[in-house]
Amino acid sequence: MTDSPWEAGRPIRNGADYIESLRGRDLDVWLLGERVPEPVDHPIVRPSINAVAATYDLAVEEPALATAPSALTGETVNRFLHIVGSADEVVAQNRMQRRLGQLTGTCFQRCVGMDAINATYTVTFNIDRATGSAYHRRFTAWLAEVQRLNLVVGGAMTDVKGDRSKAPSQQEDPDLFVRVVERRDDGIVMRGAKAHQTGCINSHWILVMPTMRLSEADRDFAVVAALPVEAPGLTFIYGRQSCDTRAAEPGDIDVGNATYAGQEALIVLADVFVPWERVFMHGEVAFAAELVERFTNYHRRSYVCKAGVGDVLIGAAALVAEYNGVAGASHIRDKLVEMAHLNETIYGAGIASSHESRPTPAGSYENDALLANVCKHNVTRFPYEMGRLAQDLAGGAVATLPSQMDWAHPDLGPLLDKYFQGVAGVPTEDRVRVLRLIENMTMGRNAVGYLTESLHGAGSPQAQRIQIGRQMDLDAKKTLARRLAGIDEPEDSAAG
Amino acid sequence: MTDSPWEAGRPIRNGADYIESLRGRDLDVWLLGERVPEPVDHPIVRPSINAVAATYDLAVEEPALATAPSALTGETVNRFLHIVGSADEVVAQNRMQRRLGQLTGTCFQRCVGMDAINATYTVTFNIDRATGSAYHRRFTAWLAEVQRLNLVVGGAMTDVKGDRSKAPSQQEDPDLFVRVVERRDDGIVMRGAKAHQTGCINSHWILVMPTMRLSEADRDFAVVAALPVEAPGLTFIYGRQSCDTRAAEPGDIDVGNATYAGQEALIVLADVFVPWERVFMHGEVAFAAELVERFTNYHRRSYVCKAGVGDVLIGAAALVAEYNGVAGASHIRDKLVEMAHLNETIYGAGIASSHESRPTPAGSYENDALLANVCKHNVTRFPYEMGRLAQDLAGGAVATLPSQMDWAHPDLGPLLDKYFQGVAGVPTEDRVRVLRLIENMTMGRNAVGYLTESLHGAGSPQAQRIQIGRQMDLDAKKTLARRLAGIDEPEDSAAG
Amino acid sequence: MTDSPWEAGRPIRNGADYIESLRGRDLDVWLLGERVPEPVDHPIVRPSINAVAATYDLAVEEPALATAPSALTGETVNRFLHIVGSADEVVAQNRMQRRLGQLTGTCFQRCVGMDAINATYTVTFNIDRATGSAYHRRFTAWLAEVQRLNLVVGGAMTDVKGDRSKAPSQQEDPDLFVRVVERRDDGIVMRGAKAHQTGCINSHWILVMPTMRLSEADRDFAVVAALPVEAPGLTFIYGRQSCDTRAAEPGDIDVGNATYAGQEALIVLADVFVPWERVFMHGEVAFAAELVERFTNYHRRSYVCKAGVGDVLIGAAALVAEYNGVAGASHIRDKLVEMAHLNETIYGAGIASSHESRPTPAGSYENDALLANVCKHNVTRFPYEMGRLAQDLAGGAVATLPSQMDWAHPDLGPLLDKYFQGVAGVPTEDRVRVLRLIENMTMGRNAVGYLTESLHGAGSPQAQRIQIGRQMDLDAKKTLARRLAGIDEPEDSAAG
Amino acid sequence: MTDSPWEAGRPIRNGADYIESLRGRDLDVWLLGERVPEPVDHPIVRPSINAVAATYDLAVEEPALATAPSALTGETVNRFLHIVGSADEVVAQNRMQRRLGQLTGTCFQRCVGMDAINATYTVTFNIDRATGSAYHRRFTAWLAEVQRLNLVVGGAMTDVKGDRSKAPSQQEDPDLFVRVVERRDDGIVMRGAKAHQTGCINSHWILVMPTMRLSEADRDFAVVAALPVEAPGLTFIYGRQSCDTRAAEPGDIDVGNATYAGQEALIVLADVFVPWERVFMHGEVAFAAELVERFTNYHRRSYVCKAGVGDVLIGAAALVAEYNGVAGASHIRDKLVEMAHLNETIYGAGIASSHESRPTPAGSYENDALLANVCKHNVTRFPYEMGRLAQDLAGGAVATLPSQMDWAHPDLGPLLDKYFQGVAGVPTEDRVRVLRLIENMTMGRNAVGYLTESLHGAGSPQAQRIQIGRQMDLDAKKTLARRLAGIDEPEDSAAG
Repeated sequence: MTDSPWEAGRPIRNGADYIESLRGRDLDVWLLGERVPEPVDHPIVRPSINAVAATYDLAVEEPALATAPSALTGETVNRFLHIVGSADEVVAQNRMQRRLGQLTGTCFQRCVGMDAINATYTVTFNIDRATGSAYHRRFTAWLAEVQRLNLVVGGAMTDVKGDRSKAPSQQEDPDLFVRVVERRDDGIVMRGAKAHQTGCINSHWILVMPTMRLSEADRDFAVVAALPVEAPGLTFIYGRQSCDTRAAEPGDIDVGNATYAGQEALIVLADVFVPWERVFMHGEVAFAAELVERFTNYHRRSYVCKAGVGDVLIGAAALVAEYNGVAGASHIRDKLVEMAHLNETIYGAGIASSHESRPTPAGSYENDALLANVCKHNVTRFPYEMGRLAQDLAGGAVATLPSQMDWAHPDLGPLLDKYFQGVAGVPTEDRVRVLRLIENMTMGRNAVGYLTESLHGAGSPQAQRIQIGRQMDLDAKKTLARRLAGIDEPEDSAAG
Repeated sequence: MTDSPWEAGRPIRNGADYIESLRGRDLDVWLLGERVPEPVDHPIVRPSINAVAATYDLAVEEPALATAPSALTGETVNRFLHIVGSADEVVAQNRMQRRLGQLTGTCFQRCVGMDAINATYTVTFNIDRATGSAYHRRFTAWLAEVQRLNLVVGGAMTDVKGDRSKAPSQQEDPDLFVRVVERRDDGIVMRGAKAHQTGCINSHWILVMPTMRLSEADRDFAVVAALPVEAPGLTFIYGRQSCDTRAAEPGDIDVGNATYAGQEALIVLADVFVPWERVFMHGEVAFAAELVERFTNYHRRSYVCKAGVGDVLIGAAALVAEYNGVAGASHIRDKLVEMAHLNETIYGAGIASSHESRPTPAGSYENDALLANVCKHNVTRFPYEMGRLAQDLAGGAVATLPSQMDWAHPDLGPLLDKYFQGVAGVPTEDRVRVLRLIENMTMGRNAVGYLTESLHGAGSPQAQRIQIGRQMDLDAKKTLARRLAGIDEPEDSAAG
Repeated sequence: MTDSPWEAGRPIRNGADYIESLRGRDLDVWLLGERVPEPVDHPIVRPSINAVAATYDLAVEEPALATAPSALTGETVNRFLHIVGSADEVVAQNRMQRRLGQLTGTCFQRCVGMDAINATYTVTFNIDRATGSAYHRRFTAWLAEVQRLNLVVGGAMTDVKGDRSKAPSQQEDPDLFVRVVERRDDGIVMRGAKAHQTGCINSHWILVMPTMRLSEADRDFAVVAALPVEAPGLTFIYGRQSCDTRAAEPGDIDVGNATYAGQEALIVLADVFVPWERVFMHGEVAFAAELVERFTNYHRRSYVCKAGVGDVLIGAAALVAEYNGVAGASHIRDKLVEMAHLNETIYGAGIASSHESRPTPAGSYENDALLANVCKHNVTRFPYEMGRLAQDLAGGAVATLPSQMDWAHPDLGPLLDKYFQGVAGVPTEDRVRVLRLIENMTMGRNAVGYLTESLHGAGSPQAQRIQIGRQMDLDAKKTLARRLAGIDEPEDSAAG
Repeated sequence: MTDSPWEAGRPIRNGADYIESLRGRDLDVWLLGERVPEPVDHPIVRPSINAVAATYDLAVEEPALATAPSALTGETVNRFLHIVGSADEVVAQNRMQRRLGQLTGTCFQRCVGMDAINATYTVTFNIDRATGSAYHRRFTAWLAEVQRLNLVVGGAMTDVKGDRSKAPSQQEDPDLFVRVVERRDDGIVMRGAKAHQTGCINSHWILVMPTMRLSEADRDFAVVAALPVEAPGLTFIYGRQSCDTRAAEPGDIDVGNATYAGQEALIVLADVFVPWERVFMHGEVAFAAELVERFTNYHRRSYVCKAGVGDVLIGAAALVAEYNGVAGASHIRDKLVEMAHLNETIYGAGIASSHESRPTPAGSYENDALLANVCKHNVTRFPYEMGRLAQDLAGGAVATLPSQMDWAHPDLGPLLDKYFQGVAGVPTEDRVRVLRLIENMTMGRNAVGYLTESLHGAGSPQAQRIQIGRQMDLDAKKTLARRLAGIDEPEDSAAG
């Protein structure tokens, strides 16, 4: 595997280097009840690594799209590690995300980290300004080194939460939100777990953040820190995905997308030590909500990646219609148009949010919050409808195709080739492949990323509704209505 | 396994008898590239057999719901084998279907046969009346014996179709629609294949029917016949379902619904002989469309079964909200209400169609065609939205839960129990189980039945739109509009 | 006007008699700031009277549809005055309602009364059984006479409500819900107002009912009574409708539907006396909610009338497409199909509810509550989408056509005929007429009935959601899910 | 009325000047069958003039929003007359449009002209480049003078079309598309009519353009020219709007929005002479489609104005909820959030399109075509749903309120004040006013602009679907799908 001349500790140059960088780390990774000694070589894990590797290769192949000049180091860095310095750079993130969605057809796992470092950049600046702390310097020093080595940062926000109706400090078991359990001269000790951690096993660093607004009682939970994934005390338990074991079957057809997949895991922090130099918030409960909001603000318009994945699904739906001989039917064409319309509606609100970025106190740029929430909220709806339409165009075979193993059988194969053929001139295998891709994206492994993650990633639908409610400025709208209706302003115009 | 005292050739009395009746048939069944010597004992096949068995047990436990007095034999028979003699009996089918959907959470596979025998009953009557043939007598003789033995009939309509833009006789390969390849003194020889055959391996008989309107050139394709599944020349190739192999894993949790599942397979007819006594149409191309329409008419309102499956999904969504501690939140409640509203909208149109049944020339009853299509068309939309809402209520864990094998590990199990707990007092396992059930129904094995089959079974969405277009009686509506708008009727009122 | 030989005090035989019966009543009716001395002759009021008259004429022309044998009198009576004695009779109401929607294209105003008498029939029976009162006898005696004379009964439920967050007895002004202000030996005195009173001026009797669940503190508001519209103390103030004054303009085109319209008015009760014989509830607060629920239960599936109105709108949309020369375009056809699908979805749930009727303690029949709410809830959504589609098919001219007065001008008329022509052979006037009908139904006078009343009549959308929430039986559904997920029933299975 | 010291022929400085500039023009304007001698003083016309005047006043009050530096003259000009020279200027149009939608609650009528001059700017450049003609110089000379005098330009594109299934040259009557009927030494003579002409009577100039792709046979129809509205031969026939005559009633309440309204009229060109200097296309059929596409491209994202109007509707809905005492209910809040979400989804795609502008050959900037179509397509859907939600929040009174004339009556007024009150402390009149505003925007006069114009302006929904279909680049998407599915590229990759 090592035609890659990469060596540990040197900057990663491309996808091959990146894959090498993951080898031999001896992480405590579990999958289907077994410890995974080398994730890089595990057939179920590997496609998720390939998806991250694509982010490195894109930086090589299309540097304008996937790199940027770092203000921290003066060097060109991967855009996923870059602190955005202009509205155009915020928009450029979106273009890169859509392209990677197109190239991988799945979640390539690096947006959480990108959005987390940008949010932390501003919030550490603001904490320092308010309290005289030194978090921002610590953070930028760490980040500069990460940029130099060109590493993957995973952002870890979502706690496991236990009883969702209770605050962290109200839970019966205090470990249900990640917290500081010990303070030492040289650092802190953290305990808890983070759920649904996108790409965490494929990362080099984990940036741990609080998950919600905190009160004084929750002081132990107000912690931000960077942990190397090799840190003692970390355990990673892989989340099952629909059809995950097909990746371990022989053949590359039934899996639908043989090269790429997403990754979600539970990270357990069993008293993990972090030196102070990598602690970027510690007890400043007042800033927890700000960090969550800045992160989700960036992250909710990062979901334009799903428009890239949607491009693949539209293409697959168009292909299967062609293979079925119905591409010319008006209702087929109309459904493809509807898919494209929904897909671009997602993209439109996302890049609009990015284009409308404004500078933060720290000098970086941040996108429009209302439009970011609108983008994400459409993402919680439209991919499901697009999935439905793709299955409509696919026909029932998308859910009733025999397995590749049947095709491999000397007697069955010819029978299946005969009876699953579509239009003349298209190999039956091609028709099967595109049907399996649609299955993969609407019910199978990448449906996790395209549908369920679209629903819950960066906050479930209700989280966006709450933010839209806060940012829709109802008072200003009421004033508009009063003016046109001929109603006097109320004396206390703050009412309502 | 045989605490069942059932013996081959005697009437089946219950689910256990039914399961015994399937043993030892030496069918040519293939699954994942291997021949399945005994489907009854195959872990992937068995849940689909259990679902059919439930239709027998329901007849024992709730005879008012699941049996009816046969006019053919004078005996009480399973409602799935009954020719409906009144509107109330048509409605009773719907009640039984919803109940079985509730009990199995999947496709119980007998509606196709039920609807096929009812459609064939009328059409054979009509062919005889028009041509002097004797199909109706043959058919009722066969059916009476099937009723007596209490067997399962599968209906086989959907051809593999090849190039969808071409008629059967225009295909390059004439076998892409099932056809008669030889006529002998004692019967006919059939060749071709039927796709997406619901429950076919779990049936005793297959009633083969044409799939579409035929012209004179398609005479060989105008054939209806009953075949025993053991007939020489039949091969059954199992369709893969999302997450199918989980049923073969140890444990009963990850599979979501360990007891029940659906079944779709490809049936290949390699020159299968059928004696004349079991041929019920042969060349009468003019009646092919009628048979398809009568069958789909019954079958499209049979999809109220999905309202029963929807009841399970609503219950699961309510449970997970309770386990998460958010059952009291207004938006949670509102989403459950929306799910129920959509679910009952499906049911409403379905039973309305059945209630509005009218007698056929043959004396049986047939439901309202317009409302049947409306019912099915809603079924192509609402389960997807309900699935989306269920995933919303489930939270992200529905797609990121570790495997049961991880829970079984002595070190990991306690960690997972700790970190996946919800509200106090609910075992973590219960929370996991309901999440896996939701996964099963929205992305996993039963999503095939609840979503994709809802889309394509009994005809894809466009098929319903064509029928709604035909039955909406635009001319009568135009006349209403003209009258109120004060526009004179056109002289040739047939125009438009 | 009196070729009608009808005389006051004799049974009304047909629409013409009915119209005569309204003359000379000297009601206190107000419209556009002026007292209306004779509503029958007022151009804005008259179309609403015509719509009620259509209910009489239908009884003559299609007695099977619009009459029924009264169990109270043994005579055949108008179905709007009939106490339903079977599920088929409940369904027959729906058929009549759809037909009248088709014939009038608007609200014909008699369903409220029909549903109110049926609800009161059962509730008075139940009060008597519980308390030994004699309301049921009083009520049936009154109703028998109303049936004999063939009169119109309006049902008056909706109070004006003031601050919607407060109960009747909590309002600053106690008159904001209709109440008993005095009890006398010979009867009671009522005060308050009822809003949005459909067809009240066109009625002979008003059946006043409470509007919501009441507590002990609200005793004065728990009153049901029948008032003749001529009762001293009643004032009727007409509600404006969009484009109402077009009915008073010359010409019959711009009004869209020149013959028929709806009617909503405010009824003020300024200390109206009612003798005890016509008081059917008086202080029994425990039965207020039951009456509201039984009434809304009947009434919510009465909204299938909108499917009849929808038939007109579909016809109009089809006509305008034809006149524009685009009837053959696939997207046009598809939109008509979508309109029909939505329209029949409304109808399906409505008649399903009626078909599923069960007997009440009083011996009458009552429809299924869950499906009735589902029907109405779809009515709050689909007509708006159908209106949008109709405007889509109409083209922009639906909102930019010049007036009929312009057409009447000798110079302009020919210009307009030239430039608003569609396909050859269709008079421009016909195209204009159908466009005006679509305007009438989607933005004009009958949009009030087709859209806004669809939203709020029989309870606003949230009222249906509350009822669906109550009737969806979440506990039973949870049990279904637990069973399939392999979760033990909780010990206290009433939980949740 | 003339506290305005404006004099004819001098630059217009503000709204008051603008209104003066319209006086005394003796146009041939017709409304409700009568010639309107002075539109400025007509109560139905005036609100539409006020809306245009608001565009002048905004330029004075917020010059950064509503003015720009003209590259043609070097002077600051009204943004509606400006040729956009950067993406930021394209975005600035959107900001101005939304603000004017907020301020007027209706169509302010100047976007058509703005988008028409920008489209013509590029197309004349391209024609000249291709053919050596001098249209671009002519056009910029004319436009520079229009900028200097600060005049209103209306764009006239939509022909009356007759039989929509036929091309211009195929119509029985050749005048159904505007055409050149005579060529003279000094200019051309035009005949025909333009329908749905937004704000034409309120304009100083009309820029006439072809309405569709043309072929060689349609050469006479390929004409672009600027006409002063006073040109002999022009007749303007006002389109009726829902509730239009309420503007002529006494009082300012029932009209809903007393100050502002839209305007659509039919313009008839009865052999109008245009000198060559104001002819900007003449027979170049190949450029007709380009002009239409460039215009609709600009214009479809101009519909973000509806997000401004939507802001008013959301505010009105929030106000009425507050006045009804239900602002705190969760379902009320949720509906306001949904309205805001839909509204911002419209805005997001619109400004995204503008932000993504690219330079044209002529040096001006043009927005992204795909996103512009997506924006407009959402505009054909969401305002209807927002209108439905606003009516939901309003309650039934939105369609049943008595008239202002009833309130003015000494006896009725107090009764109505009593019975239509909402929460304490809010005058009943305020509640009535906001209800009338909602009526105005959802069924009344401004529903024409907010709903029907949203549907059909800048092309009906199907026009956007055709464009989305063209621009969605299905081939590129198929290639993405093939790559991930493992399907070889077809040899002729242009296929499909």
